[in-house]
Amino acid sequence: MRYAVLGTGEVGRTLGGKLVELGHEVVLGSRSRDNPAAAEWARRVGGGARTGTFAEAAGASEAVVNAVGGRVALSALGSVGAAGLDGKVLIDVSNPLAFEDGGVRLSPAESDSVGEQIQRAFPNALVVKTLNTVNCRVMVDPARVPGEHVLFVCGEDTGAKEQVTTLLGEFGWPAERVLDLGGIREARAVEMMLPLWLDLFRRFGHPDFNLEVRRAR
Amino acid sequence: MRYAVLGTGEVGRTLGGKLVELGHEVVLGSRSRDNPAAAEWARRVGGGARTGTFAEAAGASEAVVNAVGGRVALSALGSVGAAGLDGKVLIDVSNPLAFEDGGVRLSPAESDSVGEQIQRAFPNALVVKTLNTVNCRVMVDPARVPGEHVLFVCGEDTGAKEQVTTLLGEFGWPAERVLDLGGIREARAVEMMLPLWLDLFRRFGHPDFNLEVRRAR
Repeated sequence: MRYAVLGTGEVGRTLGGKLVELGHEVVLGSRSRDNPAAAEWARRVGGGARTGTFAEAAGASEAVVNAVGGRVALSALGSVGAAGLDGKVLIDVSNPLAFEDGGVRLSPAESDSVGEQIQRAFPNALVVKTLNTVNCRVMVDPARVPGEHVLFVCGEDTGAKEQVTTLLGEFGWPAERVLDLGGIREARAVEMMLPLWLDLFRRFGHPDFNLEVRRAR
Repeated sequence: MRYAVLGTGEVGRTLGGKLVELGHEVVLGSRSRDNPAAAEWARRVGGGARTGTFAEAAGASEAVVNAVGGRVALSALGSVGAAGLDGKVLIDVSNPLAFEDGGVRLSPAESDSVGEQIQRAFPNALVVKTLNTVNCRVMVDPARVPGEHVLFVCGEDTGAKEQVTTLLGEFGWPAERVLDLGGIREARAVEMMLPLWLDLFRRFGHPDFNLEVRRAR
């Protein structure tokens, strides 16, 4: 597959590197064509790794991963435009976190979510929210955390969710550990888990943890 | 111990009944002295079960459980008054849920929480937020859900959190499955888990589930 990964931070570089390692072609997209982090990433990863603007990355790809921060996602995707996104699976892994008021704040929250914002802005993109509830190293290597722990997916398009579940399987997540929560509105539920994630991160002192759902049968 | 359990809904009746079963004295508090649900509960439970107004319940007790809905918690506790709460452990198990806009909404969320609202309104109460992330039958019988699933506690007073952890132990929660997230501000984190809880409830079709935290050592 040809993937665009938008965002040259740790999340984007980690996801992009894993996708190349799996044999996919990846264009790591950034705001400018001469992003040094992107260039260094492409040199290090080699193989199917390329770089470009957000628009160039999306235009060259069959599926798009939004790995920029949740608060700038609409701006980054806006520079792509609908023509580069329509009909494509758009995997949103972002969280709308910002350091404010001496702590970490989440906005939007409860009444909206980044996943919904993106779907509203690009109604013909097949938005799937997933992976935002774990650290990026866990995203691409779930065995960093022992035992049976889960990911969530949500989105309007069943086929897109199945395609994303297959990709998560390539990352190491068995399909039975990927829980479909429903439509894109449930992006609120998974984005609102971030305050708990931050509390656990502070408590454990490292990001190699995740949640398992236990239930009576 | 002498407990006040405020609220005659399923949560209050379940917690009150378990406390009596454990040998505690319980006054189930409601807005009016002649609440039929409370009277029926006291007849059925027997033993150390009594009923009264919110103020009578709290006044007669060493510790208070807030089991009214999160959106009416301040009103119920306001009818108790600070004199009935000062210096006491106040266990808040509530969630600020309401059916609005064709769905379930959570308010306050992100910028505030019921736990914090209560602590601000009653600065001399020892507020501990816990148990709000599981169904009331799971609260008092964690073995309904298999595995090593967890509860969270938060609050400003370490001694109060230890006392609550001991009570949770009486309910069947080993201390190592009770995770202290920090001060009462973290009530935001656990209240914001409710949208995920509701999604999982819809998916599983029953409330006998909970989360386990898996982590690298």
